Amino acid sequence: MDIQTLVTNIYHEVKPLAAKGEVAKYIPALASISPNNMAISLHYIDGKHFSIGDYNTPFSIQSIVKVLSFTLAHKALGNDIWKRIGKEPSGNAFNSLVQLEHENGIPRNPFINAGAIVLSDIILSHYKNPEQELLNFAKKTANETSISYNEEVARSEKETGYRNSALAYFMKSCKNIINPVEDVLDLYFLTCSLEMSTYCLAKSFLYLSNHGIVPSTNEQILTISQAKRTNALMLTSGLYNESGEFAYRVGIPAKSGVGGGIVAIIPKQLSICVWSPPLNEFGNSYAGICALEKFTTETGVSVF
Amino acid sequence: MDIQTLVTNIYHEVKPLAAKGEVAKYIPALASISPNNMAISLHYIDGKHFSIGDYNTPFSIQSIVKVLSFTLAHKALGNDIWKRIGKEPSGNAFNSLVQLEHENGIPRNPFINAGAIVLSDIILSHYKNPEQELLNFAKKTANETSISYNEEVARSEKETGYRNSALAYFMKSCKNIINPVEDVLDLYFLTCSLEMSTYCLAKSFLYLSNHGIVPSTNEQILTISQAKRTNALMLTSGLYNESGEFAYRVGIPAKSGVGGGIVAIIPKQLSICVWSPPLNEFGNSYAGICALEKFTTETGVSVF
Amino acid sequence: MDIQTLVTNIYHEVKPLAAKGEVAKYIPALASISPNNMAISLHYIDGKHFSIGDYNTPFSIQSIVKVLSFTLAHKALGNDIWKRIGKEPSGNAFNSLVQLEHENGIPRNPFINAGAIVLSDIILSHYKNPEQELLNFAKKTANETSISYNEEVARSEKETGYRNSALAYFMKSCKNIINPVEDVLDLYFLTCSLEMSTYCLAKSFLYLSNHGIVPSTNEQILTISQAKRTNALMLTSGLYNESGEFAYRVGIPAKSGVGGGIVAIIPKQLSICVWSPPLNEFGNSYAGICALEKFTTETGVSVF
Amino acid sequence: MDIQTLVTNIYHEVKPLAAKGEVAKYIPALASISPNNMAISLHYIDGKHFSIGDYNTPFSIQSIVKVLSFTLAHKALGNDIWKRIGKEPSGNAFNSLVQLEHENGIPRNPFINAGAIVLSDIILSHYKNPEQELLNFAKKTANETSISYNEEVARSEKETGYRNSALAYFMKSCKNIINPVEDVLDLYFLTCSLEMSTYCLAKSFLYLSNHGIVPSTNEQILTISQAKRTNALMLTSGLYNESGEFAYRVGIPAKSGVGGGIVAIIPKQLSICVWSPPLNEFGNSYAGICALEKFTTETGVSVF
Repeated sequence: MDIQTLVTNIYHEVKPLAAKGEVAKYIPALASISPNNMAISLHYIDGKHFSIGDYNTPFSIQSIVKVLSFTLAHKALGNDIWKRIGKEPSGNAFNSLVQLEHENGIPRNPFINAGAIVLSDIILSHYKNPEQELLNFAKKTANETSISYNEEVARSEKETGYRNSALAYFMKSCKNIINPVEDVLDLYFLTCSLEMSTYCLAKSFLYLSNHGIVPSTNEQILTISQAKRTNALMLTSGLYNESGEFAYRVGIPAKSGVGGGIVAIIPKQLSICVWSPPLNEFGNSYAGICALEKFTTETGVSVF
Repeated sequence: MDIQTLVTNIYHEVKPLAAKGEVAKYIPALASISPNNMAISLHYIDGKHFSIGDYNTPFSIQSIVKVLSFTLAHKALGNDIWKRIGKEPSGNAFNSLVQLEHENGIPRNPFINAGAIVLSDIILSHYKNPEQELLNFAKKTANETSISYNEEVARSEKETGYRNSALAYFMKSCKNIINPVEDVLDLYFLTCSLEMSTYCLAKSFLYLSNHGIVPSTNEQILTISQAKRTNALMLTSGLYNESGEFAYRVGIPAKSGVGGGIVAIIPKQLSICVWSPPLNEFGNSYAGICALEKFTTETGVSVF
Repeated sequence: MDIQTLVTNIYHEVKPLAAKGEVAKYIPALASISPNNMAISLHYIDGKHFSIGDYNTPFSIQSIVKVLSFTLAHKALGNDIWKRIGKEPSGNAFNSLVQLEHENGIPRNPFINAGAIVLSDIILSHYKNPEQELLNFAKKTANETSISYNEEVARSEKETGYRNSALAYFMKSCKNIINPVEDVLDLYFLTCSLEMSTYCLAKSFLYLSNHGIVPSTNEQILTISQAKRTNALMLTSGLYNESGEFAYRVGIPAKSGVGGGIVAIIPKQLSICVWSPPLNEFGNSYAGICALEKFTTETGVSVF
Repeated sequence: MDIQTLVTNIYHEVKPLAAKGEVAKYIPALASISPNNMAISLHYIDGKHFSIGDYNTPFSIQSIVKVLSFTLAHKALGNDIWKRIGKEPSGNAFNSLVQLEHENGIPRNPFINAGAIVLSDIILSHYKNPEQELLNFAKKTANETSISYNEEVARSEKETGYRNSALAYFMKSCKNIINPVEDVLDLYFLTCSLEMSTYCLAKSFLYLSNHGIVPSTNEQILTISQAKRTNALMLTSGLYNESGEFAYRVGIPAKSGVGGGIVAIIPKQLSICVWSPPLNEFGNSYAGICALEKFTTETGVSVF
C-alpha cells in the first residue's frame, strides 16, 4: 500500500475516535473550536508532501511552539542553556510546582511549562525584537508566510494563566528568571498563541528530520548534533506525562499542544503533523496519538 | 524571686546569645536593624506591666501581624473561614508550595504565608478600608496610638517577594483567592510592615490572654471559645517549622516574626513580648526563644 | 452541674453519634468489636474517679501505647532520644513514607508509626526483658494488675502490617533502626496489642496530669519538665493528622488509638479516657472526640 | 576508519577517565572489584563481533538483568503487565519511595528497583523453577553457557538491601506483590547477582537489535513490536535518573547496572556492551557513558 492510501485510511479510521476526547475548555477561544476538525500532513525531506483533511486551517499550536522556542534559545546560549534547564523527563504533570520546588527552580526539561517560561526569558534577553524573531523563525523554517499570532488567545491565556504566573514567580524567587515576570509571561503567552496549519507545521519541523537543515532553502538552523539532541528531548519529554507511553506505543520523537496538534519526526525521512482538537486525560490529542500509532505500526518506521 | 528581678536577669543572660543568630537580610530595611536591640515586655490582665531594654522602639512585627489579621478575618467570616484555610500544622517550611499543591490551594493553617495571603484576601472582601481597619485594630487592642505601617518596608518586601507572588497566583489558580492578586499582595505586604514596640505588642495581644476581652477597655474582640482557639492555633503553628520544638521546650502559645519579635500568651494571666533581631535557622528570634524558655522554666507557668 | 451529671449527660448524648464512624476493619480481632461499646472514665489526681458505660471492658489500646513506650524510651535515653526522632507535627498521614524519605529516616515525632517503631528499637536496646518491662510499666502507672497483651491481635497485625514493615526497613536503610527489623516489629506489634479498660487507662496516664508522679503510689516516673513536655507532644501530635483540629476544638493534650480509645490530660487536675470503637476519617474515635469536645466546652478547662 | 580501529581508539581514550568515578561500595563483593577492569564488546546481527579489554571476565550485571526479567515477565503476562507497572520515566532516584506512595504502589517503569521487584513477583507466579528459568534465558539468548549466579553477592545484597525490602513491603501493602516478600526478594537479589562478560552480555541482548529474534539460533523471543517497545523503555528509563541526559548525549536505548556495565542497542545493526566499574553520581559507569557517547558521535548511528 502506498503512503497516500495508508494515510488516507488512517485519517478515516481515527476521525471517529476523536469523540472519546474532550476539547480544551480553559479559554473561550480554544473551547469554541469544532471537535470535528481533523488533518494529517506529511513532508518528506526530498520535498514530497501529502495532506488530508483540514490541512490548510491554522490552529493554535500552543505547546508545540516550545520546540521552536527551544531552538532559538539553544542557538543563543549554546550548552549554557543547561545551566538553567534540565534534560530529564519530569515524572509529573506538566504544570507541577512540586518538582520545581524540590529542584530549586530549575525546570526538569524545556518542554514542561516552567521550562518554556525560562526559554521565553532567554529569548527576551538575547533577541532585540523577540516576538518578531520567533514569528519570523516559524515562517523561515516553514518557508511559508501565512503564520501569525492570535492576540485574543494570548490575552485569554494570560487572564486565566495563574498557574503559569505561579511557576514564573517561583523561578524568579530562585533567580532563574532574569527579566520582569510580566514581560516573560507576555512573550510566553504570545508564542503559545501562534497559529499554523498542519501543512505549515509539518513543513516547519522538517529541519529536525533533516539534521538541522531546512530542506527547501538549505539553511542550516542547528548542527547535526543539536538537531538529533532536540529529537532526543522530544522523545523523552514531548508529550507531557504521557511521554513514556508514547515512546512505547509510537516510538518516534514528537511534541504535542493542547490545541490538539502533534508534530512528529522520522529522522532522515519526514515530519508528520496531525490535528484533532479533542484531548485525552494527559492533554494530548486523542485521535492524533491513535493516528501516529497506526502510522508507525503499519510502516514499521519507529526509531527502534 | 519577684517577676521583675526574674525578667531582668533573663534579659541580661540571653542578650549575649543573640550573637548566635543572624538578622534577616532579604530586604535592606530589615538588614540595617542593629542586632543589639533587645527588649522584653510583660502585661498582666489586671493592668500591671513591666518592660526592660528597647521596649519603646517600634520594630517590624512581620508575621506576628498574622494573628491580628486572623482575628479580623475570623470575625468577618466566622467558621466559614475553615472552608478556605486548614487548622493543621504544616510540617514544611513556611513558604512551601509543595503542600499547597498537594492540597489544592487550601493552606494548612492561617499562620503560614499562604494562609496569611488568604486572610488578606478575606479582609479585602469584607472591610471597606482594609488597611485602615487593620491599623485601627492594632491601635484599639493595644489601646495605644503610636503604631504605623512602614511603607518603605512594604515596598521592599513587594519588590523581592516573588515566592509570595507564586503562592498567591497558585491559590488564585485554585480559586482560593477572590480579589486581584496584586491587591491582595499589596495588603499582605503592607500589614507585614506594621511597626510596634514590645510594650505595644504585648499589650495588644492581651485580649488573647483574657478570653477575648481587651482588659484596658473591656471591649470584647472575640468570644471565649474563639480566643482559646486562636491560642491553640498559635501553639500548634505559631513558630513556623519550629512550632513542635517550641511547644516542647517553652509550652505556651506564641507567634514569631522575621523582624525578631515573639509574642506569647499565658492564658488568664499575661502576655509577654520579646524582641531581638538575630534569627535562628527556622527564622525565629534566637535570643527570644531562649528568653521565653527561661521564663516558663523558672516560673513553671507553661500551659501543660 | 456536678461533673458526674455532666459526664453522664455527655455519655448519653454522644453514644448515638458513634454510628457516624466506622470500626477499624484491617484485622479480624478489631473488626469483630461491637460498635456499641462506650465508656468514659475520669481520674483526679486526688484519687477521686468516676466512670460510666463499659469502663471495665479491656480493649485494644493500639497507638495509645506510644505514650507509654515514649516514656520508657525517654527515661532510657534522656535527651539523646531527639537524635533519632523529631518533635514536629507530621503534616501527613500517620503511616506516610514520603516525609520519612525526605528527612532521611528520622521520624517527625514519637507518635506517628515510624516514630513508635524507633521507640520499640530503643526499648529493645535498653531493657533486658522489653515486653515484660512495658507491661509492668502499664501496671505500675495504673496501679492495677488486670492488663495484658493480646497475642492474637499482635499476630494479626504482624501478618497484615506490611506498611509498618516498609517503614521499619526504610529506617533500617537509614541506620535509624539498630536491632533486627523482625525483632523490632515483634515488639512494636505486641505493645500495640495491649488491652486496658478506660478505668485502667485513665488511671495509668494520671502521672502526666500530676507532673510525672503516680498519685496513688507517689512514684516519680518523669521529671516535671519531662511530664509537661510529653503533654506538649501529645497536644501537637497526639491525634494523627487531626491534631491541629483537636487542639483547636478540644484544647487539651491527648492520644488516640484505632481501637477507639482516646486518653486526655488536664494538667494538675485529672485524666480522662473515652472509648467508642467507630472511627472518623482520620482514624480517631468519632464519638470520643465529640465527648471530649463537650467536656472541655462545658467545663471550660482547656489549657488555653 | 573501520569500526575495530574506532573502538580500539575509544577504549584507550576513555580508560583513564574511569578514575573520575567510584566503584560501588555498598557490598564487599562489589567494592573489591578492580577499578581498572575495562572491556568493550560489539556483536552485529550478521554474526560479526569485536571485543577489546577484559571482555571474557564475568562481572555482576546487576540492574542490567532487569531487561531480561522484563522480557520473561512480558512474555508471561502480555499487556496485562501494564496493570502492575507503568511506562513513564520516574523523575526520581531509582530507589525512591516517594513516587511509589503517591502512585499507590504501582512502580513508574520496569527498570527502577520497585518495578524489577514486581517483575520478580510475576516470574515467581508464572514459572515453575524461576531461578533456573532466568539463568537459562540468559544462556539461550547469548547462546553461551558460561553464565552463573554469584550467591555470595546475592547474600550480601540481601543482608544490606533494606531499601529494597522497604519498597517490596510497601507494594505488598498496596497488594501489588502477590507472593511472600521474602521469596520475591530472594529471587530479585539472586537475579541481580548474575555474572556475564561483556562478550556474553552484548551477544545476549542482540535479540533486541534484531526485532525479537536471536540471530545465532533464529529463535523468536519477542514479537517485532514487543522488541521495539522494550528498546523504547530502555531509551526513556534505562539509566536511572540520567536517562534523559543519556538519550540527549548518546541517543540509543541502553541499560546500566551498578557493577559498571552498560548494554546498548543500535536497532537493526548491533548491540554493544561496555564495562568499567567506577560509577558517576547517578550510579552509571563513568567511562562507559563516555565510550558510548564517543561511539555514537563518531559513527553517527544514534536513533535520531
